[in-house]
Amino acid sequence: MQETAEWIAVDLSNGCLRVWIMGANGEPIAQAVTDKSAVIETHSGFETALLALVAPYLAQDHRVTCVICSGVAGWNVPYVATPCTPPQRVIAASPAFADPRIKLYIPPALKQMSPPDLMGGEATTIAGLLRSQPEFDGVLCMPGLHTKWVHISAGEIVSFQTSMTGALFDLLSQQSVLQQSVAGTAWDAQSFLTGVGDAMGRPQAIASQLFGIHAATSLLDMSGGAARARLSGLLIGLELAGTRPYWLGRHVAIIGVGDTALHYRTALAEQGVQGQLLEAPPLVLAGLCASYESTQNSAK
Amino acid sequence: MQETAEWIAVDLSNGCLRVWIMGANGEPIAQAVTDKSAVIETHSGFETALLALVAPYLAQDHRVTCVICSGVAGWNVPYVATPCTPPQRVIAASPAFADPRIKLYIPPALKQMSPPDLMGGEATTIAGLLRSQPEFDGVLCMPGLHTKWVHISAGEIVSFQTSMTGALFDLLSQQSVLQQSVAGTAWDAQSFLTGVGDAMGRPQAIASQLFGIHAATSLLDMSGGAARARLSGLLIGLELAGTRPYWLGRHVAIIGVGDTALHYRTALAEQGVQGQLLEAPPLVLAGLCASYESTQNSAK
Repeated sequence: MQETAEWIAVDLSNGCLRVWIMGANGEPIAQAVTDKSAVIETHSGFETALLALVAPYLAQDHRVTCVICSGVAGWNVPYVATPCTPPQRVIAASPAFADPRIKLYIPPALKQMSPPDLMGGEATTIAGLLRSQPEFDGVLCMPGLHTKWVHISAGEIVSFQTSMTGALFDLLSQQSVLQQSVAGTAWDAQSFLTGVGDAMGRPQAIASQLFGIHAATSLLDMSGGAARARLSGLLIGLELAGTRPYWLGRHVAIIGVGDTALHYRTALAEQGVQGQLLEAPPLVLAGLCASYESTQNSAK
Repeated sequence: MQETAEWIAVDLSNGCLRVWIMGANGEPIAQAVTDKSAVIETHSGFETALLALVAPYLAQDHRVTCVICSGVAGWNVPYVATPCTPPQRVIAASPAFADPRIKLYIPPALKQMSPPDLMGGEATTIAGLLRSQPEFDGVLCMPGLHTKWVHISAGEIVSFQTSMTGALFDLLSQQSVLQQSVAGTAWDAQSFLTGVGDAMGRPQAIASQLFGIHAATSLLDMSGGAARARLSGLLIGLELAGTRPYWLGRHVAIIGVGDTALHYRTALAEQGVQGQLLEAPPLVLAGLCASYESTQNSAK
């Protein structure tokens, strides 16, 4: 007989939906992931996608708690102002889940008033990190569509800065004149480093350096791997130029999944910073566990 | 009875298809424009769109010359290397036009080897400018998806630089997290100037300044007009920071259509540069006329 879920942890970051089915002993009894990011951007799309993953673990006459690390478009999530500890106390998500077997909880989002900035699900990851390393003091680099640089000290999020690096890479590589240049999955490590250096040296030239990839492909037979790596290098180099106060002379941990985190580590290493690589999912799960405990404590 | 075309001038720049039906006396007898940019990106789409505009002016048993200022995807256009005069001698376009009543001619594209850069139809506009102002000495700013800055001296294109400013604006305003922030057509002039100044002052921060528009919309109730103007200001300011050697202390002419050219003039004026505004279509037509004459001369 199929075991039923004690509660369910839901990660909706990095363009995928990942769930852990949690057992009575506090350990996952199963996990599943779907990368259909397009369908989970709306509430009904999210609801369908979540049910497809977790339905086998639901009991018919029992409402199970789902703790989710970030909001879906249309949800009204309150903000907590930084500096602050990562918020662990969760709130019932609105709008409510249509299926009566599930009750959704979500942590508040974070806001920084000056300069204005916003953080969603990343705060749950930070809560997870501070659960296992409460003494962490330094800077987190969290690559993604909207990469976060976060200064952590004394258990608090002191300040943070968001760069649209991943979004720019996706838009330019999929829908601009560079689309043909960067097609494929090849990668040229030297072109990446040259791109990082070019953007850090002359960040004001980025809009023409980007078009230069198209020109170099046409005139100098630049390969797809070199073009793709140079595009990534230019954008990450631009971000490093703009976030220098965060990483210069600091302890930096890069929290990510896959190649992008490695590229950030490579780029930082060239600047003399040895970034510590941390896998994101275990930290997200740890943060979601902390949030789940808050629902239990408040119920007592 | 409908007059027939002596030849046809075709402008395929700025996301629209514009034609002038030229009479025997060298003057336009009609003109028409369509903005269906999506359908004219392919050869068959272009052919259909062009025929829809010019068919009434074609004779049944006569092949008319169409001179077009830039290529369509899939056409194999040769390059001329800068420095050079804008090429006026046109070549028969490949692939050929399916309708036997039309023969297409196109000028070569321009290439610059170091730094690598490419120019298409803008060279025809420059040819048109030099036809009416052969003594022009200075810099052209040609806003567009891929804005061109061009140094002109002694009748030659000395060097040029392309920035993907318009493409970045379109992608970010239509398909990024900023989409909601910048919706509408309102415009806040002060936000534009502040954006120009912020990007020129700290171009390395552009990727976080862009996300800051989203944050300011959410946290500070920034209006749509302020957000839209700030996005434009940040991107034009970034471009001005990267093209300073082109415009600093030079005579600058801005060739464009519509509000974008005015925004460039406003931004340059803040830097103490009084850019001269020139409407693009008359210059394109003058350049196409020069190219048409070359087909007549070579036929003699």
